[in-house]
Amino acid sequence: MQATGLANDHFLRALMREPTPYTPVWLMRQAGRYLPEYVATRKKAGSFLALAKTPELATEVTLQPLDRYRLDAAILFSDILTVPDAMGLGLRFVEGEGPMFDRPIRDEADVAKLGVPSRDSLGYVYEATAAIRRALIGADGRQRVPLIGFSGSPWTLACYMIEGGASRDFPTIKTMLYRRPDLLDRVLDVTTRAVIDYLSAQIAAGAQAVMLFDTWGGVLAHDAYRRWSLGFMERIIAALPKENEGRRVPSILFTKGGGGWLADIVRTGVDAIGLDWTTDPVAARRTVDGRCALQGNLDPAVLFADSDAIRCEVRKVLAAFDSPRTPGHIFNLGHGISQFTPPDAVYAVIEAIHEGSPGPA
Amino acid sequence: MQATGLANDHFLRALMREPTPYTPVWLMRQAGRYLPEYVATRKKAGSFLALAKTPELATEVTLQPLDRYRLDAAILFSDILTVPDAMGLGLRFVEGEGPMFDRPIRDEADVAKLGVPSRDSLGYVYEATAAIRRALIGADGRQRVPLIGFSGSPWTLACYMIEGGASRDFPTIKTMLYRRPDLLDRVLDVTTRAVIDYLSAQIAAGAQAVMLFDTWGGVLAHDAYRRWSLGFMERIIAALPKENEGRRVPSILFTKGGGGWLADIVRTGVDAIGLDWTTDPVAARRTVDGRCALQGNLDPAVLFADSDAIRCEVRKVLAAFDSPRTPGHIFNLGHGISQFTPPDAVYAVIEAIHEGSPGPA
Repeated sequence: MQATGLANDHFLRALMREPTPYTPVWLMRQAGRYLPEYVATRKKAGSFLALAKTPELATEVTLQPLDRYRLDAAILFSDILTVPDAMGLGLRFVEGEGPMFDRPIRDEADVAKLGVPSRDSLGYVYEATAAIRRALIGADGRQRVPLIGFSGSPWTLACYMIEGGASRDFPTIKTMLYRRPDLLDRVLDVTTRAVIDYLSAQIAAGAQAVMLFDTWGGVLAHDAYRRWSLGFMERIIAALPKENEGRRVPSILFTKGGGGWLADIVRTGVDAIGLDWTTDPVAARRTVDGRCALQGNLDPAVLFADSDAIRCEVRKVLAAFDSPRTPGHIFNLGHGISQFTPPDAVYAVIEAIHEGSPGPA
Repeated sequence: MQATGLANDHFLRALMREPTPYTPVWLMRQAGRYLPEYVATRKKAGSFLALAKTPELATEVTLQPLDRYRLDAAILFSDILTVPDAMGLGLRFVEGEGPMFDRPIRDEADVAKLGVPSRDSLGYVYEATAAIRRALIGADGRQRVPLIGFSGSPWTLACYMIEGGASRDFPTIKTMLYRRPDLLDRVLDVTTRAVIDYLSAQIAAGAQAVMLFDTWGGVLAHDAYRRWSLGFMERIIAALPKENEGRRVPSILFTKGGGGWLADIVRTGVDAIGLDWTTDPVAARRTVDGRCALQGNLDPAVLFADSDAIRCEVRKVLAAFDSPRTPGHIFNLGHGISQFTPPDAVYAVIEAIHEGSPGPA
């Protein structure tokens, strides 16, 4: 990937805690079902998996929210379960039930078969990454906004790999944790190596920041989180290339339900921490004490409100982060945007962010 | 209810932060599907609701775990949704989907119809309470252990009343919160008054401690929790009778996912706070600083482990609470016991608690 100038690098600057003229914003799951144009492309693809596996269509949906809204970053359209899928577990999406694996990991023999997927098996992700980078180049020859790559955390991937699908209490993986910690360690070790390779390849293909989604870290007991989720993410952060195209490639770590563990998370050396909507930003800033940037954390349900209430809630978030006056805040939701969000609510959010601070040049 | 001596009042003493010879223990949902004798009684009743609504059978299942295990408290067998059911919302339990209301609360007209249920409409709960108190009297004429009454928190009840059933993101109630706060306030106000009456009647019928289950407080944004859940619980705690039968009736407040809000919770004046399994007891003790007792907080999934691992995890909990050396800890799980728990695992937990400290006299 040839380095091109960035027309808007506020997101990357905020991740490095450098001053920005306004608070940069992107939204988790910003390319998603709440957008009618996304629904149309998905229909064309035939299924969610076909959409994620066709670089051309993944590029199309990645750019859709950028064409609508003044967002400061693009995020690769993909799914966290591509890695276990490439490991041969047989990913399916069942209507109303979410993701399912045909061959979940349950015993010694299953674990023995696990390996780091070849780069070829995930080639469609890297192709999409490169295609999105090309598509992001604007009429002036500069890249409009940076591109974020991402992966599920090893613990979160293992939750799906071992349960075989979504769960509320995760009894199967937790039974393995308490009965066969050796086995779970092996699952997490190979998954960690797979994620390192996956994110490294995304960076090589053009991802300019990377995010770890630890969706299920918050179901762990307080003293199990560090051992079974955070420790593996720390290994990943340490192993990733720190620079590409002459620029720092910052990392973001998001544990849903991890607001109580920020003191541990910041010690991983990650560049930014994503905060969920239940976490108090004022307390979080005190804990983190300027050692990394913070991303978040509007309740996604605020987007069901009218524009006055949205403006009020957005202002509360900005005030709590003292943003953009204190550098190091990226505005986001505290969780992925709901499929039931009215697209106009996103305009209201972004307008409220830019009130009182200038928009992108 | 005639006051009778308690053969074992360690649970009540620990709630008042008085010293106890060992750490008292009970388990949330201790009368439940993991016990074959419970399954048999439920079968006899025909349905879960019939079981909860038949005082004789509710008494039977309440006592089942006490006959098996050395537990230090009984908890009324009932359901948190009895109150909205008595409000006329039409409670049903749908196999695999959980509770559903036929007539959820969605608009002004629905809210206008809500009222505090008559005591008659919940008479089966108060009858069960009195019957359980009688059944708890042992061969020596003394009550074996104290009886806990309970209710859902107003926010948690409103979640079901407005969504019409369980939910993951609670879009309907959150839309009401951000679009029609006046309406939600009225729902919560009437529910608060209903819960005050409900728990007062349980106390009059013989409940010796009361617990508020705020199962869904943790889905609220950090600055919405106090306004929409905790504030109403505070009103309840302030309004409840503080004494009955010449004894203090302590209150326990449990917000799942509320570990970040303990500083606010302790200010309600509640006697004890239930901690979920994600909350660090050492940090919780520091925050609470001896102002109330703490209950919890073993990960329920530990009960899927073998007895050695169970013992190890139980010891970690006791050590973190410095229990029973520092008074004011009641051992419990951090969430209700799973239906998949092997009954023998509970013996292992209780044995581990009593190792190194004497059992009940």
